[in-house]
Formats: sequence, C-alpha cells, structure tokens
Amino acid sequence: MLSTMQDVPLLVSRILRHGSTVHAESTITTWTGEGEPHRQSFGETGERAARFAHALRDELGIVRDDRIGTLMWNNAEHVEAYFAVPSMGAILHTLNLRLPTDQLVFIINHAADRVIVVNGSLLQLLAPLLPSLDSVEHIIVVGPGDTSVLEGCRQSVHDYEQLLEGRPSTYDWPELDERDAAAMCYTSGTTGDPKGVLFSHRSMYLHSMQVNMTQSMGLTDADTALPVVPMFHVNAWGLPHATFMTGVNMLMPDRFLQPGPIAEMIESERPTYAAAVPTIWQGLLSELAEKPRDISSLKLVTIGGSACPPAMMRAFEEDHGVRVCHAWGMTETSPLGTFAHPPAGLSAEDEWPYRISQGRFPASVEPRLAAPDGTFAPWDGKSPGELEVRGPWITSAYYGGATGEPLRPEDKFSPDGWLRTGDVGVITPNGYLTLTDRAKDVIKSGGEWISSVELENALMAHEAVAEAAVVAVPDEKWGERPLATVVLKEGAENVGYEELRAFLAERIARWQVPERWALIPAVPKTSVGKFDKKVLRGQFAAGELDVTRL
Amino acid sequence: MLSTMQDVPLLVSRILRHGSTVHAESTITTWTGEGEPHRQSFGETGERAARFAHALRDELGIVRDDRIGTLMWNNAEHVEAYFAVPSMGAILHTLNLRLPTDQLVFIINHAADRVIVVNGSLLQLLAPLLPSLDSVEHIIVVGPGDTSVLEGCRQSVHDYEQLLEGRPSTYDWPELDERDAAAMCYTSGTTGDPKGVLFSHRSMYLHSMQVNMTQSMGLTDADTALPVVPMFHVNAWGLPHATFMTGVNMLMPDRFLQPGPIAEMIESERPTYAAAVPTIWQGLLSELAEKPRDISSLKLVTIGGSACPPAMMRAFEEDHGVRVCHAWGMTETSPLGTFAHPPAGLSAEDEWPYRISQGRFPASVEPRLAAPDGTFAPWDGKSPGELEVRGPWITSAYYGGATGEPLRPEDKFSPDGWLRTGDVGVITPNGYLTLTDRAKDVIKSGGEWISSVELENALMAHEAVAEAAVVAVPDEKWGERPLATVVLKEGAENVGYEELRAFLAERIARWQVPERWALIPAVPKTSVGKFDKKVLRGQFAAGELDVTRL
Repeated sequence: MLSTMQDVPLLVSRILRHGSTVHAESTITTWTGEGEPHRQSFGETGERAARFAHALRDELGIVRDDRIGTLMWNNAEHVEAYFAVPSMGAILHTLNLRLPTDQLVFIINHAADRVIVVNGSLLQLLAPLLPSLDSVEHIIVVGPGDTSVLEGCRQSVHDYEQLLEGRPSTYDWPELDERDAAAMCYTSGTTGDPKGVLFSHRSMYLHSMQVNMTQSMGLTDADTALPVVPMFHVNAWGLPHATFMTGVNMLMPDRFLQPGPIAEMIESERPTYAAAVPTIWQGLLSELAEKPRDISSLKLVTIGGSACPPAMMRAFEEDHGVRVCHAWGMTETSPLGTFAHPPAGLSAEDEWPYRISQGRFPASVEPRLAAPDGTFAPWDGKSPGELEVRGPWITSAYYGGATGEPLRPEDKFSPDGWLRTGDVGVITPNGYLTLTDRAKDVIKSGGEWISSVELENALMAHEAVAEAAVVAVPDEKWGERPLATVVLKEGAENVGYEELRAFLAERIARWQVPERWALIPAVPKTSVGKFDKKVLRGQFAAGELDVTRL
Repeated sequence: MLSTMQDVPLLVSRILRHGSTVHAESTITTWTGEGEPHRQSFGETGERAARFAHALRDELGIVRDDRIGTLMWNNAEHVEAYFAVPSMGAILHTLNLRLPTDQLVFIINHAADRVIVVNGSLLQLLAPLLPSLDSVEHIIVVGPGDTSVLEGCRQSVHDYEQLLEGRPSTYDWPELDERDAAAMCYTSGTTGDPKGVLFSHRSMYLHSMQVNMTQSMGLTDADTALPVVPMFHVNAWGLPHATFMTGVNMLMPDRFLQPGPIAEMIESERPTYAAAVPTIWQGLLSELAEKPRDISSLKLVTIGGSACPPAMMRAFEEDHGVRVCHAWGMTETSPLGTFAHPPAGLSAEDEWPYRISQGRFPASVEPRLAAPDGTFAPWDGKSPGELEVRGPWITSAYYGGATGEPLRPEDKFSPDGWLRTGDVGVITPNGYLTLTDRAKDVIKSGGEWISSVELENALMAHEAVAEAAVVAVPDEKWGERPLATVVLKEGAENVGYEELRAFLAERIARWQVPERWALIPAVPKTSVGKFDKKVLRGQFAAGELDVTRL
C-alpha cells in the first residue's frame, strides 16, 4: 500500500535554496595569498549561482544533461558551479588537475564536456590540451590569468564575471528526477582507462545528510570547515553540499596548499574542522615544528585517502590539541564509506584500535566480505574477505560515454549489484573495518587467502632484508602461491633463502610460507613510491626473474 | 540522464539490521517501577523482532499491508513491534491510549487493524472496546495483566512471549518499495473524524537521518535518550528509529509517567537527553522543588507539542543546568518541522528570541506563508501567513480507509500539494518560525488578517476585563470582522464598550479595532481548558449573543 507522504525529490537545488536563504549569513572565505581573504555569504553565493545558470542557459545554450567541466581550486566560484550546474539540470564534471595530460584529455573527451570553467591560474595547464578536446565549445575563465595562452584556440573564451553581469539573481530551478545525474568524477585506476562515476541528486542529498550526522563530521553553523581536500577529489568529500545544508562556514585554500599558507590560514581564520589526505597533514606537522603557529581552533580533523600513521595522529593530539579521525571511502562511494569515531565508553588507550581502523559503517552503507571460498566471511575481526558495499550513494556502474551503456566490469560489481571495492579486510562484530590488502595483491591458495602485506612485513623484519615484495604466481596444485622477491642489505648477500624461510616459518602459518624465491636489485615503484607489483608480475611472466624453488 | 548510483530503497529493515548488528551492544532500558529495570541490547531486540515477525506471518497469517495496532507504553516490546511490523511489509498502527473510547473504536475500524498488541496493564482499557472492533482477529498481550477481562471475546488471545518462543532469530526481510506505507498515526482534530497519516519507509528513514543531524537532536552512542513523549504520539518524535541508526541508548518509562518516577529514573539511569510536552516538564519542576533529585545528566531536553513558557526554560537551565530546546511539528510532519537551536555567535540573552520561537527549518522541510491577499508573505519576521510546508516526510493526504481514495480536504492541502498546517505565523529572514494564531482564529478583513490572539491579549490587559475572546463574524463590506466577547471582573460592570474600544485603539492599529461587542458570563472552554471559539461562533450564528455595534 502506498503511503500518503509527499513525493518530493531530493535535489541539489533544494540544498542551494535552503543554504542561500535560511543560512544566507554563513560565509565562504577564500584565501588569496596576500591581503584580506575574499569573503562571500551563502546568500550572495546563491545569487551568483543563479546568474551563472542564466549565463549557461541563455548565453551558452546549455541544456539538460550537458556536461560542464571545472578545472579549479577550492574557492567560492567553484562552489557556485557546484550548485548552479546540477540545479539547472546539467552535470558538473570536476577535473583532477594533477592527472597526466593524456588522462585529462581522455576524460574530457569521454565525458564530452561542452564547457570548461577554469581558474586563471590554471590556464597554462589547459591551453596545450585544447586542440585535442573535441567536444569543448566554451572556456570560462575565473579570476586573473594569462589569457594570451588561449589565443588562436577553437573554443569561445569568456570571462566569468562578465558572463554573470546583469543577469537575474534568482532562477526557477527545474523539478528534476532525484535519480538524474548531478555530477561526475573519474577514477584513475592503475589499470585501463579512467572510469566515470555519475552521482545523482538523490545520492548527493543523502550523502550530505550523512556528513551532517553525528557519526560523521557532524558540524553546525558555529563551525568553519577547511576542505584542504580538493573539490575535484570526490566533491571535497561532500563538504560543499553538506555545509549549505546546515550553514557551516567554509574556509577555501584556493591554490595555497603548501604547509606554510595552510598553517597561516588556520591561525588567522581559526577553522574548527579540516579534511585532507595524510601527506598534507605530515607536511603541516613539519612546518609547525619549524615555525610554530596556533592551530588549536581545530576541534576535529578528518584524514582519508590513505591510512594515517598513528604516530601522526598522536602528534596532532599531544602537540597541538587537535583530534584526528580516520575515514575511508573512494570515488565509487561518494566517498563516505566509514568514519573512525571509536565506540562510546572506552578509555583513551582502548580507543586506539578503533581509531586506527578504517572506521565504522553508517546505516546507509551496507558491507559484506566476499571470502575466498565463495561464502561471506563473518564479522569477527579475523576472517578476511573482499569488501563489497551497497547503499544509496554507492555506484552500480561506470559511465559508458555519450552513446554506450553503463559499464559493469565483473571485477568491480558482483552479479547482484554490490560494488567490489578491490580491498581485502576484516570487520569487527560492532562494524569497524580494517583493510589489510588490495584484492589483487592477495594470494588465493587452495581456497584460502595469503596476505602479501603480512608476508612482506614479516620478511622485512629480518635484519638482512632491505625490501621485500610478495606476488601471486600460478600454481598447478593450489591455484596460486606466493613468490617472495627480496632485496638484501649491503653486506648481507651471504644470507640464504633457507634462513629467510625458517625465519618466516616461526612467524606465520606454515602453509603460507613461500616455496618460490627470487633476489632482485630493488622493488619496482610507482610514481608515488608504492610497490609496483604489476611490474614484478610481468617480469615473472616474461621469465625475467631468477626464481629458486625450495 | 540517469546516474550510475545503486537504486537501494530506504527501508525500516535497513535501520533495524544496522542497529542490531553494528550497534548490537547499545541498550533499551525499560523502567519497571520497582527493582532493577529491564535491560535489553539492540542485538537481542533485533532477534526478538525477527521472532515476532515469524509469529505474525506463520502463526497469525499476517501478510503485506495488514495493519497491526499497538496499544502500548514506551517499552522494549513496543520497539520490537516498531521494527518487526514495517520490516516484514505490514503497517504499524500506534493507538493513542488517551483518546476517548468512541474515537479509538473509530480509528481501529477505519484502519481495519487485524491484530492489536496490548500491554497487560492496558487490558481494562481495551476489553470494553472489543465487541465493536469488526476487523480485529487477534489480541497479543505483552507482559502481566488481568486477562480474565478478555474472556468471552471473539478474538484469539495470545501471550507475546509464548508467540515468540522457539521461532528463528533472523528473518529474511523483504525488499519493499521505499514509498510503501510503514506506519500510520491518526490525528484527533477538533472537527470531524480522526484522520490517518500513512508514513512511508522513505519518510521514516529520512526523518531518522534528520533527527541524527546536528540541527536536531544530534545524539551519539555515548548518549542515552529518554522519550517521555509516548510512542503513540507521532512515533515518539522519531526517536526509536533514529537511535537504531546511530546506537543511541534508550531509557523507556513504560507506564511510569508521573513526575516522581520520571525524576527517579533520570537520577538513577542518567540519560543525557529527554523529549516531552511542556506539562510533563512543568510537573517535573514542581516535583524537584518538593523533593530534589539530580537530573544534571541531561545535556539537552526537547520540548514540543505546544509552546513552552520561557520561565520554565530558564528554570531548567538556572536551577538544574539542563538546556531546553523548543521544537515544532505535527502528525502530518512526521513530526520534525523545526528545531529551535539559536544561530551561532549570539550572546545568551540575544539567543532568547530564537529559542522561544518554534525554531528553524531544516533543508528537507520547505516552508511558505500563504498571505491573506493570495500571495506568499516575505520572510521578514513581521508579515503573517498560514504556514504551508513541503518535504519528503510531510503528508500529501489522509488515509481513505480500506476501499477509499486518499483524502485531500482543501483546507488541509493546497492545490499544488503543500500541507496547510492551519497555523498562522511569521518567518524571520534566517528561517525561524513564530506561530501566532490558528488559521481558523484569524479574522480575514478586507484582504488583511487580524490576529484574534493579539486582540484578546490587548483586551485582557484592561483592568476591568477578566477574560476576552475574539472571533470572526461575517461582514458585508470587509468579508469578516472581529467580534469581541468580554467577561468583566466583578465590580467592574459599569465599564462600557466605548472605554474598551478607546483602550484598544491606543494599542493596536485602528482598522483592527472591533465594532461588534458582546458581554458574556464566561468564555466557553474545551476539555483541556482552551478557549472553545467553535461554541462562540455557534452562539453568534444562532443569535444567542447580545451584540452591540458601535
């Protein structure tokens, strides 16, 4: 039986209308590097978003479902695009300005962006790409920059402020279907082409509510949030939308992402909350050690993107009085997957195992662990499985391009539609996730899994071992078995495989100890310094490794 | 363009699954009056809800959309019914045990409840009704009670614990449409028959998220919530569902709603949050004045249902260190409409005007003020209008009964589907609502409104006036004009209408001053002591008032 409730769609325009009226006085402060920062109220932001939507529709002929790319830092104008584009029924496509040029070109062409909104300070990055961008008709330049680099380009070039000038400050936002796409973001996987996730109005609305729940960021209009995490990195973890829902003020770093300016803006603007990846926080700690600044206004800092060393969390708390909270997610999860607030009632010391976990699942993110034997692993904190998730802000597919069907590669989606995260981990009985391996890095041996990370850590504990990487290799009997590749320290070349094997056998289950061993001069690394096991697997397949079988 | 997000429905069963696993250790404590309270974990509650669902389906033959009535206090078993019934696809119908007998009979028959779950302590209330309950087949008795009063009744009588015994502790909850009805609640309006609101899974899920947002209750698993507000009063303001979403512990008062036991359970169980109507809080204040108890564990208390005197709010804060927050809502709004947290950055004194308002609208509750001239009034804190609201947990109609279409009376719903609340008020530019009148009590005079409440207050400020009630009467020229009915104090019978009129003219706009006056011996009152203007309007229409026209 149908209920009698109103069938009101959950739309980005509703968040905008609310934020720019009820919270009209909340502010977006954008750092300018020198002098006074730029300050703009949510009310003004709403008016400028309406002007921008009018310009896109009336001047540039943008219609429903057109893709609008943004190549921008975190600033007030980017927030205007965040709201104007989806609210008018078009699709916001945030472009990751740190991607290699060829990937940027691929992504813009695949999404078929009609417009690119670009910060003046990023024109040098965009200009060389323009001849390769088939779909792009308009470039909108925000803020000062050397527009001479655009001379001769095929696209029409517009100045953002001139486009907005004289247009109406309200817009009759259309009543869309809440399942319509509102924004898109491409993941840059390590294999294959980047893949696009299409967020819906519904998913963004629900995600914003979750961000404002006490289990997550849980901020109020007494707070100021500093998203150091870029707005092209999964919607700055949902902060721009969430803040308009509750009136949380925003402090935007623009292009000033070095530790010095970050420390300076925290000291002078006194945000209560910040979000970033660990490397930024590590840099900030070093900066503060060198040149102390007061960052005690921060009540809570969220660290996500990759695991945060506990020592860094302790340093923030003990040296600066700043509470750090881990979170886990990915582009495919909007991104909020887990948040590592510890359970209530524990001592500070007993909280640590929970705080260094990836965090706890909220009601809307349903997890399960696909075990190697084809069942689902129990939540006992010990039994590993590949994490699969389901929920209203989890993707079910990737964008198939202008003419194609959505893509559902089977290594990414289970037959019943859950997202396969590619991460292996365990879940405690009370819903805390700890990730241990990437699924492609575990060794599937006779219906059981062997953690390559665990083997590597055990090996590197041996005094003769400089580095060790373990990869799966085919095995007739067991399906897969581990191959240990080892870099010995200088002067330790006389240490043999037998000794290493005996060392391992004392530390891990016997059936997990590798039979195959190879000495290598160095572990191949990716551009960001991670072990590149793809290369090792390739070398093994090509017979380029000198493998000894014990 | 459709997004690529998963199409996962927002269901009550999802909240149950989450609460009974991730927050399995959170507890429901039910007060028993003497000895240890009854304590039950969320995990056990989930198992018992599954057992109950099996009993309903397998033993009683309950199927999709069947209505299950509950005549129960706030206790753990009521929470079990809250989750089991909607999760299995049936509809939970909470029955207000304070309603007059004839209304209870009407409501149960109109909803066509097949089952009534009743606390043993309420059997005396239910038994006399049974012969009139056509649809009810089963009575399930929860807890001890004198079942002899049920002897000879047509319905099968079951013991709740016996029904649950031996049944499976898990249930494969069906994947429903999120727009399906999950629960129903009848409003007991002052005119006409009670009307039923059918909440959906979607509306309850979204409402639960809102309750857990910082703008509303904003509790965590470190909190214990005491819903003094009954679970038959608009789902105890959403608390049972919301707590399962975030692991907030619950303290349930069962039938012990007198100020003494409430004070005692607060002192011994130390809840951090409580919710109730003003009369309960007034009673508690008096109780504490007489016999001091420590209620300082309470961080926040929500008062709703009717306006709370500021003096009471101050008394709680100054005498007991308990922060009080106003909220407004109605059955038709699930009920969360507004929450009176003041804006950030004000002094304690400047917060008061906001705190004594009805509160601020969240993003999901969109308000507008229908002005007397047919336009919508601006949000200037001055221009009144009838409050209309729209949102995903606002009703669009009333339940039409087993065979009928949903009811959409035009005094309750605008042509474009907004709920007409029947309340007249103003909204500030930053979204705070202050209600001034019931719509039926304002006088529509020449396209403007005259507040009867304002006229009454002005009149009662005259030293000769004991009571005054103002009602609208038809007027050929202006549509409606105010009729002032006045009760003079003893010994003040010589005061004339001219003097009262002159007194008013100095205090309110001249065009609002009544021309029609009548002396009456007393203002007719409703059973709860409010002015009964329906009676006055009837007396005027029947020519029973001695009206003087000045």
